[in-house]
Formats: sequence, C-alpha cells, structure tokens
Amino acid sequence: MLEKLFEPTSVAVIGASRTKGKVGRAVLDNLIESYKGEIIPINPKADEILGLRCYPTILDAPNAAELAVVVLPAAMVPDALEKCGLADVSNVVVISAGFKESGIEGAKLERRCADIVRKYGMRMVGPNCLGIIDTGSGLNASFAASMAKKGNIAMMSQSGAICTATLDWADARGVGFSKFISLGNKADLSENDFLLEMADDDSTSVIAAYLEGVKDGPKFMEIAREVSHKKPIVVVKSGRTAVGSRAVSSHTGTLAGSDEAYNAAFAQSGVMRADSVEQMLDYIRAFSSQPVPDGKNIAIVTNAGGLGILTADACHYAGLSLSSFDESTIDRLREMLSPAANFYNPVDVLGDAHSDIYGYALETILDDPNVDGIIVLTSPQAMTDVKSIAEVVAEKAVASRKPILCSFVGGTRIEEGEDILDQNHIPNFAFPERAVSSMAALCNYGVIRKRVHLEPENINADKESVSSILKKARSEKRHTLGLESFDILKAYGIPTVGTSNVKTLQEAIDASEEMGYPVVMKVLSSDISHKTDVGGVRIGLKDRDDVERAYHTMMSDVRRYIPNAVISGVQIQKMVTGGKEVIIGMNRDVQFGPLLMFGLGGTYVEVLKDVSFSVAPIGKDISRKMLSSIKTYPILTGVRGESPSDINSIVDTLCKVSQLVMDFSEILEFEINPLMVLPEGQGCVAMDIRLTLGSE
Amino acid sequence: MLEKLFEPTSVAVIGASRTKGKVGRAVLDNLIESYKGEIIPINPKADEILGLRCYPTILDAPNAAELAVVVLPAAMVPDALEKCGLADVSNVVVISAGFKESGIEGAKLERRCADIVRKYGMRMVGPNCLGIIDTGSGLNASFAASMAKKGNIAMMSQSGAICTATLDWADARGVGFSKFISLGNKADLSENDFLLEMADDDSTSVIAAYLEGVKDGPKFMEIAREVSHKKPIVVVKSGRTAVGSRAVSSHTGTLAGSDEAYNAAFAQSGVMRADSVEQMLDYIRAFSSQPVPDGKNIAIVTNAGGLGILTADACHYAGLSLSSFDESTIDRLREMLSPAANFYNPVDVLGDAHSDIYGYALETILDDPNVDGIIVLTSPQAMTDVKSIAEVVAEKAVASRKPILCSFVGGTRIEEGEDILDQNHIPNFAFPERAVSSMAALCNYGVIRKRVHLEPENINADKESVSSILKKARSEKRHTLGLESFDILKAYGIPTVGTSNVKTLQEAIDASEEMGYPVVMKVLSSDISHKTDVGGVRIGLKDRDDVERAYHTMMSDVRRYIPNAVISGVQIQKMVTGGKEVIIGMNRDVQFGPLLMFGLGGTYVEVLKDVSFSVAPIGKDISRKMLSSIKTYPILTGVRGESPSDINSIVDTLCKVSQLVMDFSEILEFEINPLMVLPEGQGCVAMDIRLTLGSE
Repeated sequence: MLEKLFEPTSVAVIGASRTKGKVGRAVLDNLIESYKGEIIPINPKADEILGLRCYPTILDAPNAAELAVVVLPAAMVPDALEKCGLADVSNVVVISAGFKESGIEGAKLERRCADIVRKYGMRMVGPNCLGIIDTGSGLNASFAASMAKKGNIAMMSQSGAICTATLDWADARGVGFSKFISLGNKADLSENDFLLEMADDDSTSVIAAYLEGVKDGPKFMEIAREVSHKKPIVVVKSGRTAVGSRAVSSHTGTLAGSDEAYNAAFAQSGVMRADSVEQMLDYIRAFSSQPVPDGKNIAIVTNAGGLGILTADACHYAGLSLSSFDESTIDRLREMLSPAANFYNPVDVLGDAHSDIYGYALETILDDPNVDGIIVLTSPQAMTDVKSIAEVVAEKAVASRKPILCSFVGGTRIEEGEDILDQNHIPNFAFPERAVSSMAALCNYGVIRKRVHLEPENINADKESVSSILKKARSEKRHTLGLESFDILKAYGIPTVGTSNVKTLQEAIDASEEMGYPVVMKVLSSDISHKTDVGGVRIGLKDRDDVERAYHTMMSDVRRYIPNAVISGVQIQKMVTGGKEVIIGMNRDVQFGPLLMFGLGGTYVEVLKDVSFSVAPIGKDISRKMLSSIKTYPILTGVRGESPSDINSIVDTLCKVSQLVMDFSEILEFEINPLMVLPEGQGCVAMDIRLTLGSE
Repeated sequence: MLEKLFEPTSVAVIGASRTKGKVGRAVLDNLIESYKGEIIPINPKADEILGLRCYPTILDAPNAAELAVVVLPAAMVPDALEKCGLADVSNVVVISAGFKESGIEGAKLERRCADIVRKYGMRMVGPNCLGIIDTGSGLNASFAASMAKKGNIAMMSQSGAICTATLDWADARGVGFSKFISLGNKADLSENDFLLEMADDDSTSVIAAYLEGVKDGPKFMEIAREVSHKKPIVVVKSGRTAVGSRAVSSHTGTLAGSDEAYNAAFAQSGVMRADSVEQMLDYIRAFSSQPVPDGKNIAIVTNAGGLGILTADACHYAGLSLSSFDESTIDRLREMLSPAANFYNPVDVLGDAHSDIYGYALETILDDPNVDGIIVLTSPQAMTDVKSIAEVVAEKAVASRKPILCSFVGGTRIEEGEDILDQNHIPNFAFPERAVSSMAALCNYGVIRKRVHLEPENINADKESVSSILKKARSEKRHTLGLESFDILKAYGIPTVGTSNVKTLQEAIDASEEMGYPVVMKVLSSDISHKTDVGGVRIGLKDRDDVERAYHTMMSDVRRYIPNAVISGVQIQKMVTGGKEVIIGMNRDVQFGPLLMFGLGGTYVEVLKDVSFSVAPIGKDISRKMLSSIKTYPILTGVRGESPSDINSIVDTLCKVSQLVMDFSEILEFEINPLMVLPEGQGCVAMDIRLTLGSE
C-alpha cells in the first residue's frame, strides 16, 4: 500500500539547501548518497544545488515527484502541501517542527495540513519528524547522520532523538534495518498504518517501536493482534508513570493512556512490551537472527561455573525452565567431557575447555528433545581460545533449528569472538541476564504466535429495556442509578440478589416475606455514609418478628447517632452466605475505551491492589485469564481444603459486563461490588452496583 | 593486618615453570611484569627460569619469602605448605584446584592444608583460585591475562572465571581497581577478612564482591555492618533460586543459604545487593567517582524529550523523586533557554542545544537546593556537538558536590564524548535506565551510611524455667511441646491466652469458670486434623450451660464423623475477639542462624506469602521495619476507618522471640500462629504455639 512512500521513483525536497548544517542540505545529502531515483530540489532562490537542477515550486518541475520531503518553516508548510497535491505527489514526509508539540496555534496548523493531505488523497509522515529510511530501495529521506545498514528489523519511533540514538548505536554494532520511520506527530500516518505495511513487507521479520501513545487504541489492538501472528512486535511505551506522563504532555502533546490499559492492550494483542530501549534492542537482535523455540526448556553451556549459576538464577526469574536431559545425553557428555565437568544442566565444560569440547557439548545438547534453546556462556580464561569457540558455536547454530544466544563476558579478549558471532548473526550479550531475558522473549513469542483469539460470544440480552432505563435516567438528568441498575444486570442475564427499597415497616415485612428469609436490612439515607457505624445495618433476620424488631431498633439507633438525618426508608435484601466477594468494574480509558477490572473484594483490592485489567470486548479466554492472573486466585480455586468457588460463573459475568459496556457507550463507569461467588456449580450473584452515566 | 599479603617484599612461586601455557609460567610472567620486590621461583627441575635463580624447595632459598604462590598439583600442596611454614612464610596463595570442589577426597586434602596453615600461623587465599592483585604495590600474584589498571575499587570473587571476565571487561573500559582477589574455596581467608582489610585500605573507596555463599554468616553481618558505614559494599550473590542453588552445590561445594536469609542479612548489615554482574559494575562505577547525595531528589537534563520521559519513568520505579525546582531556578532557565524548551524537570534543552546551553542549565540546576543529583542525557542529533557537551558536563561536575551521572545514547557519534567523560571520572551509561538505577544505589547508600544500629534491648526473662521445660521434654525424647510452650512465652513476658486441656466435662466446666466466659472449646485428638470439619470446635460459649451442651454435642458429632477417633479430652480457651491474626515464626538458616518471620495470618501468608524476614538478634528498629515492610501493613495501621492495631505490642513480641531463640539454640523451629493483636493500647495475645526441639 505504501510502496510509493518507501520505494518512490522520484523524490522532491521542498526547502532544499546548499548550506552545510541546514536540515534542507542534510536531507539532500542523504538522498544523494544512496537513492537511485530522481531527486528534485525545490528552492525559489536557487537554480541548482549540488549539481541538481532546482525549481522554485514543485509545480515547476517537469517530472512529477512520487514523494515530497518538506523542510520549510511550519507556517509555509500548508501552501507547500497544496502545491504537492496539485502536482499529484502521492506521499509527503513533513520534517518541519512547530506544530502540535508547540501549542494551540501549532495544533491548528497541523490540522490544516492534515486536511490538505486528505483533500488530495495523499498520505503524510510527520510533521515534526526525522524522516524515513528504506534500506531496500536505498531511500534515506531523513536528516539522520548516516544511512542505516541493511537488515530485517523495521523500527518506528515517536521520538526523533531516539531514532538518532538508535541508528548511531546500531551503526556501531553492525545491526541493520529494513525500514526506519520517525513517526513525529502522527497527524496522518501512524503506527497502525506502518504495522500493516511491515506485516506484508518481505524484507522485515521483526517490528520494533518506541511509542509515547497510540493514535487509535481499538484499531491498534485489532491490527497488532493480526500482525503479531506473522511477526514479533516489540514496543517500548514511555510515560508509564504519572511523573513520566506529565513529561509526555509537555513533549509531544500526546495524551498518555493509563499504563494499565496499555499493558492490557499489549498483552491481549500479542505485543511484547520491553522495559527499556536497551531491552528492546536486545530482543530485536534475538528475533532478527534466531528461530522461535517450541517450548521454554533451556540448556546452558558454560566454561565458568559462576556464570552458569547466574544464568540459572535468571532463567528461573524469567519463567524459563532448565531442561532435564535424557539419560543418553548425559552419557554422551560423560564420554568426552572431563570427569570433573558438570554433565547436568547447566553443563560446565570447565575453564580449560577447548572449542572441540564446546562443539561436542553443543551438538549433544541440541540433539536432546528436551532442549528448546541454548545459552552459551564463555569467560576468557587462561586457556580459552575465544575465537575458535565462537567459530564452533556459529557452525552448530547454522545447522540448528533451535535458538542459540550467547554471552561471552569480557572486553578486549572476547572482541574477536564477538565479531565472529556478529558475522554469523548469533547475538552476543554483554552479560548473561540479558541473554536470558531475550531468550524469554523468544519463548513468549512462540506462545503468542500460536495463540488462537476467541471472538466474544454473542450474549442474548434485552438491550431494549436497558436502553429505556438509561434513557429515562438521562431525561431526568441523573448520572447515577438506583435499583434500576439491578434490572440492567438482569437484562444481560447476570443474577442479582433480591433487593427492595421500601418506605414503611409494613412494606419491609411484605418484601421480606416475598423474597424469603433470612434477609438483610439497611437504612436508606443520603445523609449517612457509613451505615454500619450508626446501627444502620441488620443481618440474618430470620422471620417477621426479627424484621419488626430490627426496623424499630434501627430507626431509634440511627436517629440517636445522626438526629437530623433524612431517612427515606430501608433496603431489604435477601441474605447470601457461604460465598466469596469479588469485584468486576469498568472505566473508560482515553486511548482504548472500556477497561475491565477484576479482583477479590475487601482488603485484597483496597490494600493489595491485586486486580487485573482487560480491554473490552473480551471472550471467555481473556476473561479466564483475568481471573487466573491475580495473585489471590488460589483463594477462588480453594485453599486449605476449602471448596472451590464457581469460577465459570465469574467468567460468564465478566463477558456479559464486557458486552454491556460495549453496547452502551454512555455507561462511563460501572462496578459490581461485591459480586458474591458461591461454591462451584452454585453460580454468583450481584449484591451491589454502581453505574455512572455520561452527559450525552 | 594483611599488608604482607598485598605488599610483600618477596614472593616465591612454588611450581614455577618456563613452559608457555602453564599456570606456573603465567604467574611468574605476571609477577615479573609489575612487581618490584624479589621473585623466587621454586622448581626442583630447574636452576633458573626467565633469568631468575630457581631453588628445589622454598627451604633452599637464601632469602625468606613473605608470600608464596602455590601452583602444584593438589596432592603436592600439603607438603609445600609444610615447607612454607618451616621457611617462615607469612601468607600463601594456593591457586591449585582439586580440593573441596572435586569431591570428598579433595575436601579432606583441603582440611589438611588449612590445618597446616593454622599450625604455622600463616594465612591462606584459596585453594582453587586465580590469585590476587594489588595495583598499589604492583603485585600480580595471579594467572590473569593482564594486570588490572589502578583505581579505587576493591573487588573479590568466589568465581575465578568471573574475575577473569570482569578484569577483561574493566580493561577495555578503563575501569581500575585497588585490589582484586579471587577467593577460591575460602579454606582460610574469606570475604570477612578482606572486608575488614578493605575498610581500612586508603586506596579503596568502594568494595564489590561476587559471592556464592558466605563462610560465617553472623560474623559477616557484624563486619559488614561496621564496614558499610565507611565504604559502600556491593554484592552479587548467586544461587538465588532452587535451580541456581543446585548449580552452586555442584560447583564449589558451597552450601547456599536460603535467599530470604541473604536478603535479610544484607539489608540488616548495609550491603547493597546487585541483581547481576552488570548492575554491580554499574554501581561501582558510580560509587568510585561520584559523591553520595544527601537526598533522593533528582533533576534530569536532556536534549531529547523521549529520553527524558524514559528516565522519569525509571526514576519513579527506582523510588527516586523528580526535584521540584525553586521559582528562581525556573526563571533563570527561562532567561537563556529557547522558549520552546521545558523549564521544569525533566529539563529539555531541545535537540539543537549547544554545549553552552547545557552548561548554563546544569549550573542553574546544581544551584537549586531541591536537587540532590543530576542525570544528564544526550542523543547525538544533527546539531549536537557531543564532545563539547561532555567537556561542559565534566567542568560542572568537577566543581560540584552533587553526583552527576550521564547517559549519552548512541554509538560512533558519542565515542569522543564518552572518552572525555571517562577521563573525568563521570560514569556514562549506555541507556538511561542504568544511570537511574545507579543513582538510586548512590541515594540508598546515603541512607545506609547515616543509619544508626540499635543493639537489641535486654529482656528480663525467666530463662531458668524455660531451661527446665526444654530439659524435661528432651529427657522424655519429645521434639514438640504441649501446653508447656505457653509457659515458655510467659517466661519471656509474651501474653498468652488462658488455655487448659481437660479430660472430663466437669474439668471443662471448672476451667471455664476459672478463666471466665466466653470460652472456646476444641476437641483434643491426634486422629483429627481438621477439627472444624467434624464439629470439633465450638466458639462463644457464654455460660456453664453452653459448655455442657457444647461438650455433649461435640462428642456425639465427632464420634459420628470419625467413629474410631481416640479422644483425649477437650481444650478450653478464653475467647478473644476484635483482634487481627498475625504470625511470628523462626527457622534456623544454615548460614545465618535464626531467621525470624513476620506476616498477617490466614490467606495473607498462605496464598500471598506476604511475609518479612530478619536475622536474629534484632532490636526495635529492625522489628518495626519487619512490620512495615509487608504489603498488608496498612491492615494493621487501619484501613477504611478501622481502628489501628497495637503495633507496639507486636514489635515487643518480635524482640522477645528474637531473644528467646538466641538464648536457646536447641529450639529449631518456632511459630506463634496466630498471635491475636488487639486494638491500639490493648496488646496482643498468643493463641497457639508450635515449637520443635533439636536432638541435642
């Protein structure tokens, strides 16, 4: 779709300059260096720049440009874009700054640019970006200091400076890219467009991104979910914290979504989140060269016991398992290795091991069906021939369909070995822990790639009655609901506890008789916030007499504590015992929409904040994962011989809530607290509901 | 104390060799290269090696050697050590392998060596080590590939291969050391001796260690607590996990202590634990050159917004705060920086900032009293003169008493700047997150250095009655106690609930009357594990009638459930209500001795494992920290308007338990579960106790 952006036959540079140090010169230099198509400098003050014929405007050029790179002052950009449209340019890269990132006026200017681009059916990268690079076509339409090396990594970044730093870093380490895109303010083209583009780009096998926010959350999730089945996507998302988010706002004007929403969205759509740019670079080096393993059983080969232990520790923390070798593997190792060696995992070939022993050990372990991937460690000891060990590792790695990552630890003495590993596309990490976390990323992607996405089931709901309840509330300018919210749950098939708000003792008795004993009685008064503290709650009322007595004592107690409280009546609720309290909630996130929350009630949620999030809509797969991912999940499955709770009924309820909040976007906030979950097979029942409506 | 080890006037090499590739040659080469004293090769088969007069045994040499380095086969080492003793050698470094790490026979040989060394009053490094280096005296008594550069970092390592890798790494990066010690099997000298040595070594300002275990836990804590007030101690302790620990055992035969014990011991004694060798190296680079800050308010200066956000995020996660600048600071920044810059923290000087702007911003921020330390970020953008920025940073850093850490991110284009930072001893980190974690280490050490250690208060306990209880139990060959354990608590002033084990209904009534109602009744039977499930527990018995009724129904219920259960009677316990259940426990750790545990009872400990550990003995300071460091601590201080629990009484009880288990080492395991904590001012009371005695 964007071939003409990355492989144009001709490129115009609007604002081309011959003055060294100017961006308009840097872009021209970069194009001249490696681009094979026609280059058309545009500058009204020159006839020729660097030997190229120059035109006053793009409309004056005899040949049409497929791509125009704009490096003018911000105010002049809209006019230039109009001319591009008239000249039939397909795509523009607007490098100029001074748009949304600079304030309200800049934002207006940016919207004008986007409108012009749309009017002419063009697509735009930027504004406020470094430009784009395609190593396949030789296009360097950027003011980066140098051209990227060829490789199979496509990288995009919302920060131009991180583009620069990464390119410089990669250049020094021989890491290559297929495409490199500085996203800038994303007024038109965004990560979503480029994800789609890279998914089908044969020269790309791994996608990396530095993002400060996504442009369209739901779309991003939909696209990423598809693309992540084809290629690994590794993202650094900054602005994780409140502090960080403030820095984002003052930086590019992106409104950062809450970090929980990003974590949920990334997890649901198969995006791997890296904790730092360093980790992202580690991961993509692994993905760009190594196969994805079938499982997470890892073998370690080392010439240094200490490094082996550190690596084993790190594997444990990263959720990887150490392979248990077949007996035959151990026998084979015993045949050739020194008797003092360790034949179990981690395999310690000992400090004086030569490359042939490394080779033998590697070959033997690669044959073991219990091994999904190998980490090779080397410390440059007295007898260690690092170079020939690297050669042997390379030889075995090429012949293997299992991933091999290395950590040759040291400085000068490992350089030669490192070069050989580089040349053979085997990533070497300065320290073992980074090899382990990269191996874990490979393993995680193995799971993501195979994952089947379950579409949410359609729930048979009485949407019309919900519609009319909400309509009525809004017509009465109410933003919260009363007992009607129970009817909303009923309409979606969520069991609710029998609840009745009554005004008199007689009504209380009638309600109790109707729903059956035992019941709970609560005072109804907007003047009372902590009902229990003023004697406003009575539980376990077993018969008519109990209700009568409770009513009278409650009224006198409450009046004694808060003499002026206006009491509108009492609530009678069927008493539910033997269950566990959980919470199901929903908040609307700015970027991703309805964010569902699940957790156990009481202190678990208040003190421990032990909750999980997902972006709606969700099916049973994600719903079940929400349950199992809280730390207190064992309380639901049953600890200390307790019977398990009805987990399936929670899963169902979460899916129903998911559909409810998808169906009615006017529901801003929603919480069932508590949802009382009964023992397995006995379902669950909503005890209290809080629902907030938006103002149209 | 160990001057003669690190600065000997003469060194003998026992097992010196002229054959290239042999360890005996490598050691000799290393000594010749930089050591200024007399070198005496010992080898019965040569008269001269590399121009040095050689002797058959050390006894034949005319001059005494202060230090002997032994590189013989293991079996020949004891004899060589005897001769060293006779020749009045002060210290030996035994490089030879084939001792404890190789099995039972090796362990015996190692003990023999230690005995010989002790007999002659010598001290020994190793066996099974790489040797030692002292850059001050020029001593390189090791077979490392090269001499370390001079510096102020003292490093010791229990893995020779990690020594090698670290030396090679440091060499390439210009990082220097004062001393470098390969600890080997630690048959004599261990981390404890070297900690003491380094504490008083003027050439050392930071101490680093890679450890797989400590030799004497309590001694280590005592020494480290002292030394950490003088100099920062950074340790990588491997074998953290069960998997890792297995690897340790097969490696050096060290019995790894539990990781919780190490974490507690390190925290109590001011040792900073690094998660990886890379992190240790990061930390010591920061400590070796930068001052320790007074607080943890950090300013960020950047030419790249994206890097600033990532750094702000990382600060938040590392527990650092971003400084809020004084108004005058912001005004001064506004005077000189571009209007589009960000004057708040992180300060974004923008991508086109020259070094003078960096300098101005740094100077201004260093003046702000709200700033304790600065992280300087640089991305090599089009206009960025990395070199002169580095020069400006160096200039400001030298004049400052606040720490400055850098992260210039890139490759080739930042090299020149990195070199300037290196020369000026300003650590540069490849990525911002690592600068942040190193800054956090500096800040943490600021707290450690000022920390005052409280000696445990002496508790007035009736030790004699405990003694006799334990004596009686052991004479009866019992390893667990009955109700006597309540008397043990009483002897240490820990309140216990009134509890009585009785055989008949009449006794039950008498006991209840004596302790006062309400009471709880529990069936006593070794055949019943879940008393509640079989009707074996009755709570809230308010009077004599209740007790009578409860007794009869309990007996018939229990007999119905478990017809053959042998019932020895019932337990009557005073009922305690309105409290919260906590657990205080103790296990003896192999390395550190009594490890105290604290947590909230029930699911909090069972499912969430939300507990804290400390090594006894502890005073009130550590006791209080144990409470506040669990995640559920707010439940004790009172959530949702609940009244706070009596925290002081828990603190007291922990200290008393600490003294009890210190006084009686025959108590192997101990647990008060639950300790019922009442509201503030009302104390706490032990409800049940489990105590296991060792077999003498």
